[in-house]
Amino acid sequence: MGTHDGRDFDHWRRDRIQEFEAFLDRAVPNSAPFASPMRYPLLSGGKRIRPLLCLASCDAIRIGRDVDLALPMAAAVELIHTYSLVHDDLPCMDDDDERRGRPTVHKAYTQATAVLVGDALLTHAFRILASHLPSAMAGEAIVKLADASGHLGMIGGQVLDMGLDGPVDSVERVTELHALKTGRLIRCACELGAMAAGDDGDLLRRLTRYGELVGMAFQLVDDILDADEDEGDRGPPSFVKLLGVEETARRAEDAVAEAKELVRDMPRPGPLLALAEFTVARKV
Amino acid sequence: MGTHDGRDFDHWRRDRIQEFEAFLDRAVPNSAPFASPMRYPLLSGGKRIRPLLCLASCDAIRIGRDVDLALPMAAAVELIHTYSLVHDDLPCMDDDDERRGRPTVHKAYTQATAVLVGDALLTHAFRILASHLPSAMAGEAIVKLADASGHLGMIGGQVLDMGLDGPVDSVERVTELHALKTGRLIRCACELGAMAAGDDGDLLRRLTRYGELVGMAFQLVDDILDADEDEGDRGPPSFVKLLGVEETARRAEDAVAEAKELVRDMPRPGPLLALAEFTVARKV
Repeated sequence: MGTHDGRDFDHWRRDRIQEFEAFLDRAVPNSAPFASPMRYPLLSGGKRIRPLLCLASCDAIRIGRDVDLALPMAAAVELIHTYSLVHDDLPCMDDDDERRGRPTVHKAYTQATAVLVGDALLTHAFRILASHLPSAMAGEAIVKLADASGHLGMIGGQVLDMGLDGPVDSVERVTELHALKTGRLIRCACELGAMAAGDDGDLLRRLTRYGELVGMAFQLVDDILDADEDEGDRGPPSFVKLLGVEETARRAEDAVAEAKELVRDMPRPGPLLALAEFTVARKV
Repeated sequence: MGTHDGRDFDHWRRDRIQEFEAFLDRAVPNSAPFASPMRYPLLSGGKRIRPLLCLASCDAIRIGRDVDLALPMAAAVELIHTYSLVHDDLPCMDDDDERRGRPTVHKAYTQATAVLVGDALLTHAFRILASHLPSAMAGEAIVKLADASGHLGMIGGQVLDMGLDGPVDSVERVTELHALKTGRLIRCACELGAMAAGDDGDLLRRLTRYGELVGMAFQLVDDILDADEDEGDRGPPSFVKLLGVEETARRAEDAVAEAKELVRDMPRPGPLLALAEFTVARKV
Protein backbone atom coordinates (compact mmCIF):
# COMPACT_ATOMS: atom_id res chain seq x y z
CA MET A 1 0.00 0.00 0.00
CA GLY A 2 2.52 2.58 -1.11
CA THR A 3 -0.19 4.87 -2.39
CA HIS A 4 -3.21 6.21 -0.59
CA ASP A 5 -6.33 4.42 -1.66
CA GLY A 6 -9.70 4.04 0.04
CA ARG A 7 -10.17 0.36 -0.74
CA ASP A 8 -6.66 -0.50 0.38
CA PHE A 9 -7.34 1.32 3.63
CA ASP A 10 -10.64 -0.47 4.25
CA HIS A 11 -8.89 -3.78 3.65
CA TRP A 12 -5.99 -2.90 5.94
CA ARG A 13 -8.35 -1.59 8.57
CA ARG A 14 -10.54 -4.68 8.57
CA ASP A 15 -7.57 -7.01 8.90
CA ARG A 16 -5.89 -5.02 11.62
CA ILE A 17 -9.05 -4.48 13.66
CA GLN A 18 -9.73 -8.21 13.50
CA GLU A 19 -6.25 -9.06 14.78
CA PHE A 20 -6.56 -6.38 17.41
CA GLU A 21 -9.94 -7.52 18.72
CA ALA A 22 -8.67 -11.10 18.84
CA PHE A 23 -5.68 -9.90 20.87
CA LEU A 24 -7.94 -8.03 23.31
CA ASP A 25 -10.16 -11.08 23.64
CA ARG A 26 -7.14 -13.17 24.67
CA ALA A 27 -5.73 -10.41 26.90
CA VAL A 28 -8.86 -10.38 29.08
CA PRO A 29 -10.30 -13.85 28.47
CA ASN A 30 -13.84 -14.78 29.46
CA SER A 31 -12.40 -17.20 31.99
CA ALA A 32 -10.57 -14.51 33.98
CA PRO A 33 -11.94 -13.36 37.31
CA PHE A 34 -13.89 -10.10 36.94
CA ALA A 35 -13.85 -10.68 33.15
CA SER A 36 -17.45 -9.74 32.51
CA PRO A 37 -17.34 -6.12 33.80
CA MET A 38 -13.81 -5.62 32.44
CA ARG A 39 -14.80 -6.78 28.96
CA TYR A 40 -18.03 -4.77 28.97
CA PRO A 41 -16.45 -1.38 28.17
CA LEU A 42 -13.43 -2.87 26.40
CA LEU A 43 -15.27 -4.88 23.77
CA SER A 44 -18.14 -2.50 23.12
CA GLY A 45 -17.20 -1.45 19.63
CA GLY A 46 -15.29 1.79 20.03
CA LYS A 47 -13.78 3.33 16.91
CA ARG A 48 -10.33 2.04 17.96
CA ILE A 49 -8.66 5.19 16.70
CA ARG A 50 -5.69 4.96 19.07
CA PRO A 51 -4.93 1.31 18.30
CA LEU A 52 -5.31 1.95 14.58
CA LEU A 53 -2.86 4.87 14.80
CA CYS A 54 -0.41 2.64 16.65
CA LEU A 55 -0.70 -0.18 14.13
CA ALA A 56 -0.60 2.22 11.15
CA SER A 57 2.52 3.92 12.53
CA CYS A 58 4.22 0.57 12.81
CA ASP A 59 3.05 -0.62 9.38
CA ALA A 60 4.14 2.63 7.74
CA ILE A 61 7.79 1.94 8.42
CA ARG A 62 8.30 -1.64 9.47
CA ILE A 63 10.31 -4.06 7.48
CA GLY A 64 8.63 -7.45 7.90
CA ARG A 65 9.10 -9.06 11.28
CA ASP A 66 7.60 -12.24 12.64
CA VAL A 67 6.32 -11.02 15.96
CA ASP A 68 3.87 -8.16 15.77
CA LEU A 69 4.90 -5.99 18.71
CA ALA A 70 2.47 -3.24 17.73
CA LEU A 71 -0.49 -5.37 18.79
CA PRO A 72 0.31 -5.45 22.54
CA MET A 73 1.19 -1.76 22.35
CA ALA A 74 -2.11 -0.94 20.66
CA ALA A 75 -3.93 -3.04 23.26
CA ALA A 76 -2.19 -1.32 26.18
CA VAL A 77 -3.10 2.12 24.80
CA GLU A 78 -6.73 1.04 24.33
CA LEU A 79 -6.92 -0.33 27.88
CA ILE A 80 -5.68 3.01 29.19
CA HIS A 81 -8.18 4.90 27.03
CA THR A 82 -10.99 2.60 28.18
CA TYR A 83 -10.16 2.87 31.88
CA SER A 84 -10.15 6.67 31.56
CA LEU A 85 -13.64 6.59 30.02
CA VAL A 86 -14.98 4.32 32.77
CA HIS A 87 -13.65 6.60 35.51
CA ASP A 88 -14.61 9.80 33.66
CA ASP A 89 -18.20 8.58 33.38
CA LEU A 90 -18.56 8.19 37.17
CA PRO A 91 -21.12 10.40 38.90
CA CYS A 92 -18.38 12.29 40.75
CA MET A 93 -16.68 13.06 37.41
CA ASP A 94 -18.71 13.70 34.22
CA ASP A 95 -21.73 11.72 35.44
CA ASP A 96 -22.63 10.08 32.14
CA ASP A 97 -25.28 7.37 31.99
CA GLU A 98 -24.63 6.24 28.44
CA ARG A 99 -21.64 5.61 26.22
CA ARG A 100 -21.66 4.11 22.75
CA GLY A 101 -25.41 3.65 23.03
CA ARG A 102 -25.21 1.47 26.14
CA PRO A 103 -25.37 2.14 29.88
CA THR A 104 -22.00 3.16 31.29
CA VAL A 105 -20.22 0.67 33.57
CA HIS A 106 -21.49 2.21 36.79
CA LYS A 107 -25.04 2.07 35.41
CA ALA A 108 -24.79 -1.48 34.06
CA TYR A 109 -23.06 -2.62 37.27
CA THR A 110 -22.32 -0.39 40.28
CA GLN A 111 -20.11 2.62 40.98
CA ALA A 112 -17.77 0.45 43.03
CA THR A 113 -17.48 -1.98 40.14
CA ALA A 114 -16.70 0.89 37.77
CA VAL A 115 -13.90 2.12 40.04
CA LEU A 116 -12.41 -1.39 40.18
CA VAL A 117 -12.86 -2.04 36.45
CA GLY A 118 -10.94 1.14 35.68
CA ASP A 119 -8.19 0.20 38.13
CA ALA A 120 -7.99 -3.33 36.70
CA LEU A 121 -7.79 -2.16 33.08
CA LEU A 122 -5.13 0.41 33.97
CA THR A 123 -3.06 -2.20 35.79
CA HIS A 124 -3.46 -4.72 32.99
CA ALA A 125 -2.28 -2.24 30.35
CA PHE A 126 1.18 -2.22 31.90
CA ARG A 127 1.14 -5.96 32.41
CA ILE A 128 0.50 -6.46 28.70
CA LEU A 129 3.50 -4.34 27.74
CA ALA A 130 5.74 -6.01 30.32
CA SER A 131 4.77 -9.53 29.29
CA HIS A 132 4.66 -9.15 25.49
CA LEU A 133 7.61 -6.92 24.67
CA PRO A 134 11.28 -7.90 24.63
CA SER A 135 12.86 -6.66 27.84
CA ALA A 136 15.03 -4.17 25.98
CA MET A 137 11.87 -2.45 24.74
CA ALA A 138 9.40 -2.95 27.64
CA GLY A 139 10.92 -0.45 30.04
CA GLU A 140 10.98 2.41 27.56
CA ALA A 141 7.48 1.64 26.29
CA ILE A 142 6.10 1.59 29.84
CA VAL A 143 7.75 4.90 30.72
CA LYS A 144 6.26 6.44 27.57
CA LEU A 145 2.78 5.10 28.30
CA ALA A 146 2.93 6.12 31.96
CA ASP A 147 4.06 9.63 31.09
CA ALA A 148 1.39 9.96 28.41
CA SER A 149 -1.40 8.75 30.69
CA GLY A 150 -0.38 9.78 34.22
CA HIS A 151 -0.24 13.07 36.08
CA LEU A 152 2.27 14.39 33.53
CA GLY A 153 -0.12 13.57 30.67
CA MET A 154 -3.77 12.54 30.40
CA ILE A 155 -4.55 12.79 34.12
CA GLY A 156 -2.80 16.16 34.20
CA GLY A 157 -5.14 17.28 31.40
CA GLN A 158 -8.13 16.02 33.34
CA VAL A 159 -6.94 18.04 36.34
CA LEU A 160 -6.85 21.17 34.16
CA ASP A 161 -10.25 20.33 32.66
CA MET A 162 -11.83 20.11 36.09
CA GLY A 163 -10.46 23.50 37.00
CA LEU A 164 -8.33 22.00 39.78
CA ASP A 165 -5.33 24.00 38.64
CA GLY A 166 -6.83 27.44 38.08
CA PRO A 167 -8.89 28.92 35.25
CA VAL A 168 -8.42 27.62 31.70
CA ASP A 169 -9.76 30.42 29.56
CA SER A 170 -7.24 31.32 26.88
CA VAL A 171 -6.46 29.59 23.58
CA GLU A 172 -3.04 28.70 24.97
CA ARG A 173 -4.40 27.10 28.14
CA VAL A 174 -7.17 25.25 26.31
CA THR A 175 -4.60 23.99 23.80
CA GLU A 176 -2.41 22.79 26.67
CA LEU A 177 -5.40 21.08 28.30
CA HIS A 178 -6.24 19.09 25.18
CA ALA A 179 -2.63 18.36 24.34
CA LEU A 180 -2.46 16.66 27.73
CA LYS A 181 -5.93 15.19 28.08
CA THR A 182 -6.31 13.58 24.66
CA GLY A 183 -3.21 14.52 22.68
CA ARG A 184 -0.57 12.76 24.74
CA LEU A 185 -2.16 9.32 24.52
CA ILE A 186 -2.79 9.66 20.77
CA ARG A 187 0.81 10.77 20.28
CA CYS A 188 1.97 7.89 22.45
CA ALA A 189 0.07 5.41 20.27
CA CYS A 190 2.09 6.62 17.26
CA GLU A 191 5.38 6.65 19.16
CA LEU A 192 4.86 3.11 20.37
CA GLY A 193 4.02 2.02 16.82
CA ALA A 194 7.33 3.43 15.64
CA MET A 195 9.14 1.67 18.48
CA ALA A 196 7.40 -1.58 17.57
CA ALA A 197 8.81 -1.20 14.06
CA GLY A 198 12.27 -0.87 15.56
CA ASP A 199 12.83 2.81 14.90
CA ASP A 200 14.14 5.26 17.45
CA GLY A 201 15.43 8.02 15.21
CA ASP A 202 14.03 10.32 12.54
CA LEU A 203 10.98 8.19 11.70
CA LEU A 204 9.98 7.98 15.36
CA ARG A 205 10.30 11.76 15.68
CA ARG A 206 8.16 12.32 12.62
CA LEU A 207 5.51 9.87 13.81
CA THR A 208 5.53 11.54 17.22
CA ARG A 209 4.82 14.90 15.61
CA TYR A 210 2.24 13.29 13.31
CA GLY A 211 0.48 12.01 16.43
CA GLU A 212 0.52 15.44 18.07
CA LEU A 213 -1.00 17.04 15.00
CA VAL A 214 -3.66 14.38 14.52
CA GLY A 215 -4.54 14.56 18.21
CA MET A 216 -4.96 18.32 17.99
CA ALA A 217 -7.05 18.07 14.79
CA PHE A 218 -9.19 15.46 16.49
CA GLN A 219 -9.96 17.81 19.36
CA LEU A 220 -10.61 20.81 17.13
CA VAL A 221 -13.12 18.79 15.11
CA ASP A 222 -14.68 17.45 18.31
CA ASP A 223 -15.32 21.00 19.39
CA ILE A 224 -16.98 21.81 16.06
CA LEU A 225 -19.17 18.70 16.25
CA ASP A 226 -20.09 19.49 19.86
CA ALA A 227 -20.65 23.20 19.27
CA ASP A 228 -24.43 22.91 19.62
CA GLU A 229 -24.14 21.26 23.02
CA ASP A 230 -21.71 23.87 24.20
CA GLU A 231 -24.21 26.39 25.56
CA GLY A 232 -24.30 26.62 29.31
CA ASP A 233 -21.52 24.07 29.76
CA ARG A 234 -19.40 24.39 32.82
CA GLY A 235 -15.70 23.97 32.36
CA PRO A 236 -13.19 25.45 29.95
CA PRO A 237 -14.46 27.08 26.74
CA SER A 238 -14.27 25.15 23.49
CA PHE A 239 -12.04 26.16 20.58
CA VAL A 240 -15.20 27.17 18.74
CA LYS A 241 -16.06 29.62 21.50
CA LEU A 242 -12.56 31.03 21.57
CA LEU A 243 -11.81 31.06 17.84
CA GLY A 244 -15.10 30.71 15.97
CA VAL A 245 -16.06 27.78 13.71
CA GLU A 246 -14.14 28.94 10.67
CA GLU A 247 -10.81 29.46 12.39
CA THR A 248 -11.22 26.19 14.33
CA ALA A 249 -11.87 24.30 11.07
CA ARG A 250 -8.92 25.99 9.38
CA ARG A 251 -6.59 24.97 12.20
CA ALA A 252 -7.82 21.39 12.03
CA GLU A 253 -7.23 21.25 8.27
CA ASP A 254 -3.78 22.79 8.61
CA ALA A 255 -2.82 20.26 11.28
CA VAL A 256 -3.98 17.35 9.14
CA ALA A 257 -2.17 18.67 6.07
CA GLU A 258 1.06 19.04 8.06
CA ALA A 259 0.62 15.56 9.56
CA LYS A 260 0.19 14.03 6.10
CA GLU A 261 3.30 15.76 4.77
CA LEU A 262 5.35 14.23 7.57
CA VAL A 263 4.50 10.65 6.63
CA ARG A 264 3.88 10.85 2.89
CA ASP A 265 7.30 9.51 1.87
CA MET A 266 7.35 6.62 4.34
CA PRO A 267 7.33 3.11 2.84
CA ARG A 268 3.61 2.40 3.53
CA PRO A 269 1.91 5.68 4.46
CA GLY A 270 -1.59 4.76 3.23
CA PRO A 271 -3.29 3.99 6.58
CA LEU A 272 -1.70 7.02 8.27
CA LEU A 273 -2.88 9.32 5.48
CA ALA A 274 -6.39 7.87 5.65
CA LEU A 275 -6.54 8.09 9.46
CA ALA A 276 -5.39 11.71 9.39
CA GLU A 277 -8.15 12.51 6.89
CA PHE A 278 -10.68 10.62 8.95
CA THR A 279 -10.13 12.93 11.91
CA VAL A 280 -11.41 15.94 9.93
CA ALA A 281 -13.94 14.14 7.73
CA ARG A 282 -15.88 12.37 10.51
CA LYS A 283 -19.37 13.53 11.27
CA VAL A 284 -19.77 12.04 14.73
CA MET B 1 22.84 -7.99 61.81
CA GLY B 2 23.30 -11.76 61.72
CA THR B 3 21.39 -12.16 64.95
CA HIS B 4 17.97 -10.91 65.85
CA ASP B 5 18.15 -7.96 68.18
CA GLY B 6 15.65 -5.21 68.95
CA ARG B 7 18.13 -2.35 68.89
CA ASP B 8 19.68 -3.51 65.64
CA PHE B 9 16.19 -3.65 64.16
CA ASP B 10 15.28 -0.15 65.31
CA HIS B 11 18.50 1.13 63.82
CA TRP B 12 17.96 -0.71 60.54
CA ARG B 13 14.34 0.42 60.40
CA ARG B 14 15.16 4.08 61.02
CA ASP B 15 17.82 4.12 58.29
CA ARG B 16 15.73 2.31 55.72
CA ILE B 17 12.58 4.34 56.37
CA GLN B 18 14.61 7.51 55.96
CA GLU B 19 16.03 6.38 52.62
CA PHE B 20 12.59 5.23 51.56
CA GLU B 21 10.81 8.48 52.44
CA ALA B 22 13.51 10.43 50.63
CA PHE B 23 12.99 8.24 47.58
CA LEU B 24 9.20 8.83 47.68
CA ASP B 25 9.76 12.55 48.06
CA ARG B 26 11.86 12.55 44.87
CA ALA B 27 9.47 10.19 43.04
CA VAL B 28 6.56 12.63 43.43
CA PRO B 29 8.34 15.96 43.89
CA ASN B 30 6.56 19.05 45.15
CA SER B 31 7.13 20.66 41.77
CA ALA B 32 5.15 18.02 39.85
CA PRO B 33 1.68 18.85 38.54
CA PHE B 34 -1.02 17.47 40.88
CA ALA B 35 1.74 16.92 43.49
CA SER B 36 -0.18 18.22 46.46
CA PRO B 37 -3.13 15.76 46.37
CA MET B 38 -0.86 12.90 45.29
CA ARG B 39 1.54 13.48 48.16
CA TYR B 40 -1.25 13.93 50.70
CA PRO B 41 -2.02 10.20 51.16
CA LEU B 42 1.47 9.05 50.18
CA LEU B 43 3.44 11.01 52.75
CA SER B 44 1.00 10.79 55.64
CA GLY B 45 3.00 8.52 57.90
CA GLY B 46 1.74 5.03 57.24
CA LYS B 47 3.49 2.14 58.96
CA ARG B 48 5.29 1.30 55.69
CA ILE B 49 5.00 -2.41 56.37
CA ARG B 50 5.10 -3.42 52.70
CA PRO B 51 8.16 -1.33 51.84
CA LEU B 52 9.92 -2.55 54.98
CA LEU B 53 9.21 -6.16 54.02
CA CYS B 54 10.59 -5.48 50.55
CA LEU B 55 13.75 -3.83 51.88
CA ALA B 56 14.20 -6.47 54.60
CA SER B 57 13.84 -9.29 52.06
CA CYS B 58 16.54 -7.71 49.95
CA ASP B 59 18.82 -7.00 52.88
CA ALA B 60 18.42 -10.54 54.23
CA ILE B 61 20.20 -12.03 51.25
CA ARG B 62 21.95 -9.37 49.26
CA ILE B 63 25.65 -9.25 48.85
CA GLY B 64 26.60 -5.58 48.73
CA ARG B 65 25.68 -3.80 45.55
CA ASP B 66 26.04 -0.15 44.67
CA VAL B 67 22.59 0.57 43.33
CA ASP B 68 19.78 -0.15 45.75
CA LEU B 69 17.13 -1.67 43.50
CA ALA B 70 14.91 -2.53 46.44
CA LEU B 71 14.07 1.16 47.00
CA PRO B 72 12.17 1.68 43.72
CA MET B 73 10.47 -1.68 44.24
CA ALA B 74 9.42 -0.73 47.77
CA ALA B 75 8.17 2.61 46.47
CA ALA B 76 6.15 1.01 43.67
CA VAL B 77 4.49 -1.37 46.14
CA GLU B 78 3.66 1.51 48.49
CA LEU B 79 2.17 3.57 45.66
CA ILE B 80 -0.08 0.64 44.76
CA HIS B 81 -1.08 0.19 48.39
CA THR B 82 -1.77 3.91 48.74
CA TYR B 83 -3.86 4.16 45.56
CA SER B 84 -5.95 1.20 46.77
CA LEU B 85 -6.65 2.96 50.08
CA VAL B 86 -7.64 6.19 48.32
CA HIS B 87 -10.11 4.38 46.05
CA ASP B 88 -11.36 2.07 48.84
CA ASP B 89 -12.20 5.09 50.99
CA LEU B 90 -14.52 6.58 48.32
CA PRO B 91 -18.21 6.91 49.23
CA CYS B 92 -19.16 4.28 46.63
CA MET B 93 -16.70 1.84 48.21
CA ASP B 94 -16.08 1.76 51.99
CA ASP B 95 -17.10 5.40 52.48
CA ASP B 96 -14.48 6.34 55.06
CA ASP B 97 -14.03 9.94 56.14
CA GLU B 98 -10.79 9.49 58.05
CA ARG B 99 -7.56 7.59 57.66
CA ARG B 100 -4.48 7.84 59.82
CA GLY B 101 -6.22 10.54 61.85
CA ARG B 102 -6.74 12.85 58.89
CA PRO B 103 -9.57 13.42 56.41
CA THR B 104 -9.44 10.95 53.51
CA VAL B 105 -8.50 12.33 50.09
CA HIS B 106 -12.09 12.77 48.92
CA LYS B 107 -12.85 14.66 52.14
CA ALA B 108 -9.73 16.84 52.06
CA TYR B 109 -10.21 17.48 48.31
CA THR B 110 -13.11 16.12 46.22
CA GLN B 111 -14.29 12.71 45.08
CA ALA B 112 -13.12 13.44 41.54
CA THR B 113 -9.69 14.35 42.87
CA ALA B 114 -9.56 11.11 44.84
CA VAL B 115 -10.35 9.07 41.74
CA LEU B 116 -7.61 10.85 39.80
CA VAL B 117 -5.07 10.66 42.66
CA GLY B 118 -5.58 6.90 42.82
CA ASP B 119 -5.20 6.57 39.06
CA ALA B 120 -2.08 8.74 39.07
CA LEU B 121 -0.41 6.81 41.91
CA LEU B 122 -1.24 3.50 40.24
CA THR B 123 0.22 4.68 36.94
CA HIS B 124 3.30 6.10 38.60
CA ALA B 125 4.04 2.85 40.43
CA PHE B 126 4.74 1.12 37.12
CA ARG B 127 6.68 4.09 35.82
CA ILE B 128 8.99 3.91 38.82
CA LEU B 129 9.78 0.26 38.17
CA ALA B 130 10.25 0.82 34.44
CA SER B 131 12.56 3.79 34.90
CA HIS B 132 14.66 2.61 37.87
CA LEU B 133 15.28 -1.07 37.19
CA PRO B 134 17.68 -2.56 34.66
CA SER B 135 15.68 -3.63 31.63
CA ALA B 136 16.40 -7.30 32.26
CA MET B 137 14.60 -7.00 35.60
CA ALA B 138 11.89 -4.39 34.89
CA GLY B 139 9.59 -6.58 32.81
CA GLU B 140 9.45 -9.41 35.32
CA ALA B 141 9.01 -7.03 38.26
CA ILE B 142 6.14 -5.25 36.50
CA VAL B 143 4.38 -8.52 35.67
CA LYS B 144 4.70 -9.57 39.32
CA LEU B 145 3.36 -6.28 40.63
CA ALA B 146 0.50 -6.20 38.11
CA ASP B 147 -0.52 -9.75 38.93
CA ALA B 148 -0.34 -9.07 42.65
CA SER B 149 -2.40 -5.90 42.43
CA GLY B 150 -4.74 -6.37 39.46
CA HIS B 151 -7.84 -8.47 38.84
CA LEU B 152 -5.82 -11.62 39.48
CA GLY B 153 -4.68 -10.28 42.87
CA MET B 154 -5.67 -7.39 45.11
CA ILE B 155 -8.55 -6.14 42.93
CA GLY B 156 -9.78 -9.72 42.62
CA GLY B 157 -9.84 -9.86 46.43
CA GLN B 158 -11.76 -6.61 46.57
CA VAL B 159 -14.29 -8.08 44.13
CA LEU B 160 -14.76 -11.05 46.48
CA ASP B 161 -14.97 -8.73 49.49
CA MET B 162 -17.77 -6.73 47.91
CA GLY B 163 -19.73 -9.89 47.23
CA LEU B 164 -19.51 -9.34 43.48
CA ASP B 165 -18.55 -12.96 42.93
CA GLY B 166 -21.02 -14.77 45.15
CA PRO B 167 -21.13 -15.39 48.90
CA VAL B 168 -17.89 -15.60 50.88
CA ASP B 169 -18.90 -17.44 54.01
CA SER B 170 -16.53 -20.33 54.62
CA VAL B 171 -13.02 -20.35 56.12
CA GLU B 172 -11.69 -21.39 52.72
CA ARG B 173 -13.37 -18.56 50.83
CA VAL B 174 -12.46 -15.96 53.46
CA THR B 175 -8.87 -17.21 53.37
CA GLU B 176 -8.87 -16.89 49.57
CA LEU B 177 -10.31 -13.37 49.82
CA HIS B 178 -7.57 -12.18 52.15
CA ALA B 179 -4.83 -14.02 50.29
CA LEU B 180 -5.85 -11.96 47.27
CA LYS B 181 -6.88 -8.67 48.83
CA THR B 182 -3.94 -8.12 51.18
CA GLY B 183 -1.75 -11.20 50.90
CA ARG B 184 -0.68 -10.95 47.29
CA LEU B 185 0.76 -7.44 47.58
CA ILE B 186 2.59 -8.29 50.82
CA ARG B 187 3.98 -11.43 49.20
CA CYS B 188 4.94 -9.39 46.13
CA ALA B 189 6.88 -6.94 48.32
CA CYS B 190 9.02 -9.84 49.54
CA GLU B 191 9.41 -11.38 46.08
CA LEU B 192 10.55 -8.06 44.62
CA GLY B 193 13.03 -7.64 47.48
CA ALA B 194 14.53 -11.02 46.62
CA MET B 195 14.70 -10.05 42.95
CA ALA B 196 16.40 -6.78 43.89
CA ALA B 197 19.06 -8.83 45.68
CA GLY B 198 19.59 -10.76 42.48
CA ASP B 199 18.05 -14.06 43.54
CA ASP B 200 15.61 -16.03 41.46
CA GLY B 201 15.97 -19.47 42.99
CA ASP B 202 15.57 -21.05 46.41
CA LEU B 203 15.89 -17.84 48.41
CA LEU B 204 13.25 -16.13 46.31
CA ARG B 205 10.91 -19.09 46.81
CA ARG B 206 11.45 -19.01 50.57
CA LEU B 207 10.89 -15.25 50.74
CA THR B 208 7.75 -15.64 48.66
CA ARG B 209 6.39 -18.17 51.13
CA TYR B 210 7.54 -15.99 54.03
CA GLY B 211 5.49 -13.15 52.52
CA GLU B 212 2.41 -15.35 52.16
CA LEU B 213 2.62 -16.42 55.78
CA VAL B 214 3.24 -12.94 57.14
CA GLY B 215 0.38 -11.60 55.02
CA MET B 216 -1.97 -14.22 56.41
CA ALA B 217 -0.83 -13.61 60.00
CA PHE B 218 -1.35 -9.91 59.44
CA GLN B 219 -4.96 -10.46 58.40
CA LEU B 220 -5.69 -12.90 61.22
CA VAL B 221 -4.42 -10.39 63.77
CA ASP B 222 -6.37 -7.60 62.06
CA ASP B 223 -9.53 -9.62 62.57
CA ILE B 224 -8.74 -10.08 66.26
CA LEU B 225 -8.04 -6.37 66.73
CA ASP B 226 -11.22 -5.46 64.84
CA ALA B 227 -13.38 -8.08 66.57
CA ASP B 228 -15.25 -5.48 68.62
CA GLU B 229 -16.26 -3.53 65.51
CA ASP B 230 -17.38 -6.66 63.77
CA GLU B 231 -20.96 -6.75 64.98
CA GLY B 232 -23.51 -5.87 62.37
CA ASP B 233 -20.90 -5.45 59.63
CA ARG B 234 -21.98 -6.22 56.13
CA GLY B 235 -19.65 -8.28 54.03
CA PRO B 236 -17.80 -11.54 54.61
CA PRO B 237 -17.40 -12.82 58.17
CA SER B 238 -14.09 -12.33 59.96
CA PHE B 239 -11.79 -15.18 60.95
CA VAL B 240 -12.80 -14.51 64.54
CA LYS B 241 -16.44 -15.12 63.69
CA LEU B 242 -15.63 -18.29 61.79
CA LEU B 243 -12.93 -19.72 64.06
CA GLY B 244 -13.16 -17.92 67.41
CA VAL B 245 -10.44 -15.74 68.93
CA GLU B 246 -8.27 -18.54 70.24
CA GLU B 247 -8.04 -20.51 67.02
CA THR B 248 -7.49 -17.31 65.03
CA ALA B 249 -4.63 -16.32 67.34
CA ARG B 250 -3.15 -19.81 67.17
CA ARG B 251 -3.16 -19.74 63.37
CA ALA B 252 -1.47 -16.34 63.36
CA GLU B 253 1.24 -17.56 65.71
CA ASP B 254 1.78 -20.71 63.67
CA ALA B 255 2.11 -18.71 60.46
CA VAL B 256 4.64 -16.36 62.03
CA ALA B 257 6.65 -19.23 63.48
CA GLU B 258 6.76 -20.95 60.08
CA ALA B 259 7.72 -17.69 58.39
CA LYS B 260 10.60 -17.15 60.80
CA GLU B 261 11.91 -20.68 60.26
CA LEU B 262 12.09 -20.05 56.52
CA VAL B 263 14.43 -17.07 56.84
CA ARG B 264 16.37 -17.80 60.02
CA ASP B 265 19.49 -19.13 58.28
CA MET B 266 19.72 -16.36 55.70
CA PRO B 267 22.78 -14.08 55.94
CA ARG B 268 20.95 -11.13 57.58
CA PRO B 269 17.55 -12.32 58.80
CA GLY B 270 17.15 -9.84 61.68
CA PRO B 271 14.70 -7.37 60.09
CA LEU B 272 12.58 -10.17 58.62
CA LEU B 273 12.36 -11.92 61.99
CA ALA B 274 11.42 -8.66 63.71
CA LEU B 275 8.83 -7.77 61.06
CA ALA B 276 7.22 -11.19 61.33
CA GLU B 277 6.96 -10.78 65.09
CA PHE B 278 5.58 -7.28 64.70
CA THR B 279 2.59 -8.60 62.77
CA VAL B 280 1.38 -10.60 65.77
CA ALA B 281 2.62 -8.28 68.52
CA ARG B 282 1.01 -5.06 67.24
CA LYS B 283 -1.86 -3.59 69.17
CA VAL B 284 -3.33 -1.34 66.48
